[in-house]
Amino acid sequence: MITKDILNFRTSIKSFDTTKFLTVDQVQNIKDSLRLAPSSYGLQPWSFIEVNDKEKRLELQKAGWGQSQFVDAPLLIVFAVPTDIKENTSKYVEEYMSDMVKVRSVERSSLDGFAQQIIGTIERLTHEEAIAWAQKQAYIALGFGLLTTASLGIDACPIEGFMPDTVDKILGLTEKNLKSTVVLAIGYRLASDHHADLPKVRKSEEKAFLAI
Amino acid sequence: MITKDILNFRTSIKSFDTTKFLTVDQVQNIKDSLRLAPSSYGLQPWSFIEVNDKEKRLELQKAGWGQSQFVDAPLLIVFAVPTDIKENTSKYVEEYMSDMVKVRSVERSSLDGFAQQIIGTIERLTHEEAIAWAQKQAYIALGFGLLTTASLGIDACPIEGFMPDTVDKILGLTEKNLKSTVVLAIGYRLASDHHADLPKVRKSEEKAFLAI
Repeated sequence: MITKDILNFRTSIKSFDTTKFLTVDQVQNIKDSLRLAPSSYGLQPWSFIEVNDKEKRLELQKAGWGQSQFVDAPLLIVFAVPTDIKENTSKYVEEYMSDMVKVRSVERSSLDGFAQQIIGTIERLTHEEAIAWAQKQAYIALGFGLLTTASLGIDACPIEGFMPDTVDKILGLTEKNLKSTVVLAIGYRLASDHHADLPKVRKSEEKAFLAI
Repeated sequence: MITKDILNFRTSIKSFDTTKFLTVDQVQNIKDSLRLAPSSYGLQPWSFIEVNDKEKRLELQKAGWGQSQFVDAPLLIVFAVPTDIKENTSKYVEEYMSDMVKVRSVERSSLDGFAQQIIGTIERLTHEEAIAWAQKQAYIALGFGLLTTASLGIDACPIEGFMPDTVDKILGLTEKNLKSTVVLAIGYRLASDHHADLPKVRKSEEKAFLAI
């Protein structure tokens, strides 16, 4: 159960402890939460890039205004979305249908209507809108990763502050028709990270919620 | 802890049981998860509209291609984002700074740099990009709401399939400078909802993750 204690424990960590690592099971649990997150039509318009290479991490840090999390977090995942989802819709939809045929033991022809529905939705979007739509789905997975991590008593920091084009070049994403969208740094907070001890600032419930 | 069982239990429910309701504590827990979700700079560019009015629910259903969840889910929350965040950046930033001054007992002047950083980020965005940015943040909260709900053993369905302009008119959001972005329907699955029993279709871990 996600209690208020877990929600309050979770805070964006600026300084990670470089001497503390995650277990294999913990990493698996976090990866499961990303992979099993929902998305529009279940299409999963995303890729998760786990960056372990130390040199690449240093390059990412430069593309991310020097933020230490890029280097210090034991687990660093770059969330990317396809840049050609509008142009190659059928390819992505067919990959998904193929998985569906396998997992649910159905005939491909029984999925024609569903496939056409997805294609119809993406057809109505511009190139930019299709990418923005994919990015929104990736942010659901980001929410899942953040909350799953907090539920394990592990810290994290979501990072938007980086130059996406540079990150795409560093990681070779451009040629894979992928675009970096947000980064999730995961590990344990440094005891001396006083930023983490500050009380959370949020709108009051009366202000955040309207009832109609 | 968010186990794989919880992740697999969560599935987008098409048919809610109209005889089962949430407790006050459960609703509070779900609302806490939305309100305490993280966002870029902690700005929380979102409003959550809880729609209880039966007539409004029926109108929403019409704007949502007749989907039954709009009417049948005991809890229905419309996620909205400000449409004027680009034009009235200072207003939103000052509201946030004011909350920060109160909660953290700091001088407003000590926050000048932080406020300018947020303003600078939004200044570089177009009107459309600023809305898309706010929407991405709202999708983090969506992820939090979905996972918290699942952790309580409660079902949910995220809904993008509706006409946002019509929903904005129905709920009077336009005059509040708000734009509906996604809907979260929450309740219990109908035992006869066989869609809910289908195995989840996801990319394999090898396909979803790249390691560099």
